[in-house]
Amino acid sequence: MKSDRISAAQFAADGSFAGRLQKLVRDVVVPYQYGILNDALPDAEKSHAVENMRLAARKMAGEDIPPEAFYGMIFQDSDVAKWIEAAAYTLIATGRDEKLEREIDGIVDLYAAGQHADGYVNSYFTVKAPGREWQDLREAHELYCGGHMMEAAAAYYEATGKRKLLDVMCRFADCAYEEFMHRNTRGYPGHPEVELALMKLFRATGEKRYMELAKHFIDMRGQAPNYFVEEEKNRGWSVWRGSAELDTDYTQSTLPVREQKDAVGHAVRAVYLYTGMADVAKETGDETLLAACRTLWESITRRRMYVTGGIGSTGIGEAFTVDYHLPNDTVYAETCASIGLMFFAKKMLENEHWGEYSDVMERAFYNTALAGMQLDGTKFFYVNPLEVVPGVSGVAVTHLDDLPERPGWYACACCPPNIARCVASLGVYGYSENETTLFADLYLGGTVKTAKGTAIRCETAFPHGGAVRYTFCGAADLTFAVRVPAWSRKTALSVNGEAVELRAVEKDGYAYLTRRWQEGDTVELTLDMTPRFVYADPRVAADSGKVAVRMGALIYCAESVDNGEVLPLRVDTGVPPRSLPLDSALLGGVVPVELSGVREETAQALYTDEPPKRTPCTIRMIPYYAWANRGLSEMRVWLPEA
Amino acid sequence: MKSDRISAAQFAADGSFAGRLQKLVRDVVVPYQYGILNDALPDAEKSHAVENMRLAARKMAGEDIPPEAFYGMIFQDSDVAKWIEAAAYTLIATGRDEKLEREIDGIVDLYAAGQHADGYVNSYFTVKAPGREWQDLREAHELYCGGHMMEAAAAYYEATGKRKLLDVMCRFADCAYEEFMHRNTRGYPGHPEVELALMKLFRATGEKRYMELAKHFIDMRGQAPNYFVEEEKNRGWSVWRGSAELDTDYTQSTLPVREQKDAVGHAVRAVYLYTGMADVAKETGDETLLAACRTLWESITRRRMYVTGGIGSTGIGEAFTVDYHLPNDTVYAETCASIGLMFFAKKMLENEHWGEYSDVMERAFYNTALAGMQLDGTKFFYVNPLEVVPGVSGVAVTHLDDLPERPGWYACACCPPNIARCVASLGVYGYSENETTLFADLYLGGTVKTAKGTAIRCETAFPHGGAVRYTFCGAADLTFAVRVPAWSRKTALSVNGEAVELRAVEKDGYAYLTRRWQEGDTVELTLDMTPRFVYADPRVAADSGKVAVRMGALIYCAESVDNGEVLPLRVDTGVPPRSLPLDSALLGGVVPVELSGVREETAQALYTDEPPKRTPCTIRMIPYYAWANRGLSEMRVWLPEA
Repeated sequence: MKSDRISAAQFAADGSFAGRLQKLVRDVVVPYQYGILNDALPDAEKSHAVENMRLAARKMAGEDIPPEAFYGMIFQDSDVAKWIEAAAYTLIATGRDEKLEREIDGIVDLYAAGQHADGYVNSYFTVKAPGREWQDLREAHELYCGGHMMEAAAAYYEATGKRKLLDVMCRFADCAYEEFMHRNTRGYPGHPEVELALMKLFRATGEKRYMELAKHFIDMRGQAPNYFVEEEKNRGWSVWRGSAELDTDYTQSTLPVREQKDAVGHAVRAVYLYTGMADVAKETGDETLLAACRTLWESITRRRMYVTGGIGSTGIGEAFTVDYHLPNDTVYAETCASIGLMFFAKKMLENEHWGEYSDVMERAFYNTALAGMQLDGTKFFYVNPLEVVPGVSGVAVTHLDDLPERPGWYACACCPPNIARCVASLGVYGYSENETTLFADLYLGGTVKTAKGTAIRCETAFPHGGAVRYTFCGAADLTFAVRVPAWSRKTALSVNGEAVELRAVEKDGYAYLTRRWQEGDTVELTLDMTPRFVYADPRVAADSGKVAVRMGALIYCAESVDNGEVLPLRVDTGVPPRSLPLDSALLGGVVPVELSGVREETAQALYTDEPPKRTPCTIRMIPYYAWANRGLSEMRVWLPEA
Repeated sequence: MKSDRISAAQFAADGSFAGRLQKLVRDVVVPYQYGILNDALPDAEKSHAVENMRLAARKMAGEDIPPEAFYGMIFQDSDVAKWIEAAAYTLIATGRDEKLEREIDGIVDLYAAGQHADGYVNSYFTVKAPGREWQDLREAHELYCGGHMMEAAAAYYEATGKRKLLDVMCRFADCAYEEFMHRNTRGYPGHPEVELALMKLFRATGEKRYMELAKHFIDMRGQAPNYFVEEEKNRGWSVWRGSAELDTDYTQSTLPVREQKDAVGHAVRAVYLYTGMADVAKETGDETLLAACRTLWESITRRRMYVTGGIGSTGIGEAFTVDYHLPNDTVYAETCASIGLMFFAKKMLENEHWGEYSDVMERAFYNTALAGMQLDGTKFFYVNPLEVVPGVSGVAVTHLDDLPERPGWYACACCPPNIARCVASLGVYGYSENETTLFADLYLGGTVKTAKGTAIRCETAFPHGGAVRYTFCGAADLTFAVRVPAWSRKTALSVNGEAVELRAVEKDGYAYLTRRWQEGDTVELTLDMTPRFVYADPRVAADSGKVAVRMGALIYCAESVDNGEVLPLRVDTGVPPRSLPLDSALLGGVVPVELSGVREETAQALYTDEPPKRTPCTIRMIPYYAWANRGLSEMRVWLPEA
């Protein structure tokens, strides 16, 4: 059954988990990142992103700006775009804010002033490489930056009704349409993003050419001969990256998308592409495209995804590798990739409401995406390892990406504003609807309004508690489809206190409750929050003989701050994991889990015939998303069995 | 107690393990490699190594040879040098051979004809980069190639008494002496090798200046400011490798050698350097240098060595990484590095007869060094992983070095002739002696002669059997010091059938038996060949919860050719490993070991709460050195405990 995501304004979080996250984004993350983008924070790595836009504007006004005045990555504009989008959703989620709007408007003015007569806009090419526009589609990120600014424009228009940025981006989209539908019809972006963004612009404006262009990019991708190979041959120069070092898998362009069987290459590029594909499939009813999406979904979730919802097994190309290759310590699992996996999952959900899509979206959000941000909102992981050992992680030449603590900001700062925009717009991932049905896809405390105006209040301590109570704030005829996650092994459902037999109402991971609802009606879902061991497919070599622990949607980990050295811990899987009471003073409020196990004593020699002495011990686990918030620590998600 | 290694001629192998290996080297490896070096084998990768020497000779004779006529690595000469050394030791080990000597003499003539008037000789610089000699000491490998040819010269002189190559290399050494003792006194080689080779040349000729130059290189290494950094700054070009990508650790030049605490950088460079240091320390009585060697020995063997005696945890720089970082699947563990570790161990033994040095030498030889060569002598591993999974190993971008099967020959062919020269001269690693004592350091079937002429016959099925019987073939007053390996947990020793109490005669891993020996006297050593589980220090994250298996000196592994899929196997360590009878039809004759364990069934999902179904099974193990001789197979040394 198809659906649409709700608009951000249809959800208002309460003071529970999601609401606290959104408040953090409003109070800390958005102002902090504004400071960074404007180079106003002395301790952060230089961004120069806003200054680049200012330079482009001055150049368009006729000033002589030397090319070397540009600073930063070729996709530096996108940091600003993602920040605007995050700020826009914050305005929706937590209320209008004149100061913040002034800040956004100031940037929009700069950006708009940098737009060329034909609609093209990009500070890198305007300042640093004029005349080279559209010539390095593989790496120059023009459509990527433009795509992110389209998303920002749609969100800011949604938040405020202000059209200036939307109009700028429509002109850019029109410019791209001219270029790629009429002039360079074989070209498509090396870093997908504009496809999904064009779909948002199409929805915001009703302009079908934007969808047409998105579909065109998707259809052209991977056609022979490979566009990027030809492009580089003909071009003979590269704006950014050394040439042929990365193969066509890196850009998901080895085959036409409908023939692709495996998720390959740069993981963020991959899931952004698949999101665009799923969106076009939904809008156009293209079954072959949807079938390709399902195949790629299975490739990721059945064979190439970490238990934390992380994707991308290596920093070499920030990429997928091969089936079942999921090393825990040299993983990449970029924060952005898991956010992109959420996008893909959500768009698949809109095509067909299968609980598996929600389960994966939830897994990616509550584990890897959230782990990307320090609890205080000021530091960020780009890479999310499942095992760190101080002295190895971030130190050994093989582990330079896999840091044991979050640094502040990156020269390549894609992840921090990505998690901010994701959290600020969390409601749109939490619910979907169509003519007849409201779907509760995630469990978010707060109030959702259907398109027709019915409000439903959700009260829950999720992800730390399993009780979810929905209360109708008015009467309505509708089907309320509440997700029943596959991980919940015993789930109770009741309506107005009366038990509902799940089997009778459940289909594909959702309980469908159709009736004439009255104000005050309640739907109560009780999920199984028993902490459990998780076992990986034996083909995952890195997890051989090991178990992970989850409670509900949360994957847990052991840190040395709680346990002393973690590497010598072995789990007794004969004793079930035990959850402790919620500790509201710990890590912003978490439910610790304890395991029984043993600790191996350090041996006298590197290798010995003597079995190590083992002392019984209790192993204390915390949710993975909260790791590395208490100083340098050994950390492991997968622990060997005793 | 100090000692010298015996000369190669003092040992003659019988038809047991060592003898069969030497026969393989004579009958297959040496002729095969001669064919390759002369580009006479159509299926092998082009070598051109002999042709390079021919081109250099023709150029020195006045012909116009274009620089691009040179082909191969900058150190291509060293492939030939190692082959000559292997062939020379073969002449000693298995008898003179006119045809082989003609082949060697032919190459020596070419090489000699390429020598410059000042003694300099190197085909790369003569043909391809004339005028750039001695200007890129970090990477140009001139002293490395020269060193290998000095070793070849000493061996060929030892084998035949022919002086031509020895004289050529003395002139080269004289040339290097002039350059580095008088002109460029701060310089030293980026790839150590010439230090240990100069010591061999010193011993072959009695010329003390060669030892002086070796000591000088060692003393200059790592002095501030760093020579290689300065060299590159001043030079502004590089003959081979891109410039500053590799740091000073790579060349073991960050600190003066006496201040180095950790084994770092390129593993082969490291152990070749340490071998030279240990040799100079022994000859000069330099206690500070010996102390540095002991520190570096401990760094390797206590914290940075695989259970197989492999060293070098990463292909990035073919290098050591950090303490306890010993990944099994993305390891480097170059064959040459373990051979170099044998050199270092042997030279430490000559400084002080501690059994630990022999134990490590034995571990490196019988596991990683031997694994480097296919049982038929025609294919070779450069990299020796402890875990391979077809579809990942050699395929994933992270595993391109770690191949699941031996390829035939490499463009960079350092390992194949290295294992050949090591096997052909195995006797010199097996025994050492001094004025009073003959040390049996390894257990090699065959006859050893002391410098004074006493012959002792050793009969043993080692490494597949633990009985070692020495018989005196004549009378002699001497101390016979038989190694008692640390791995043998119950060792019996008898002289002429009468038990000797080990405690009374053992010191530092050797049983010292002093008496007037008569012809026919026997010394019988019975080593504990009970197969045992091996446990790694818990700080080795890659081996957490896993065990390896050894029988005597041999580390074992499980292959899927014997077991079906290996990844789902879990070992029941409550049941001791069981050795089967020697299977002479299997892999050239090995003792299989069986373990009790379980096989985990493949789950329905990538991650599941359901504990996997486990079926009891027997796990069959073979010696690691013999892996990958029966087609593509999953392989694991470290198996998870059930």
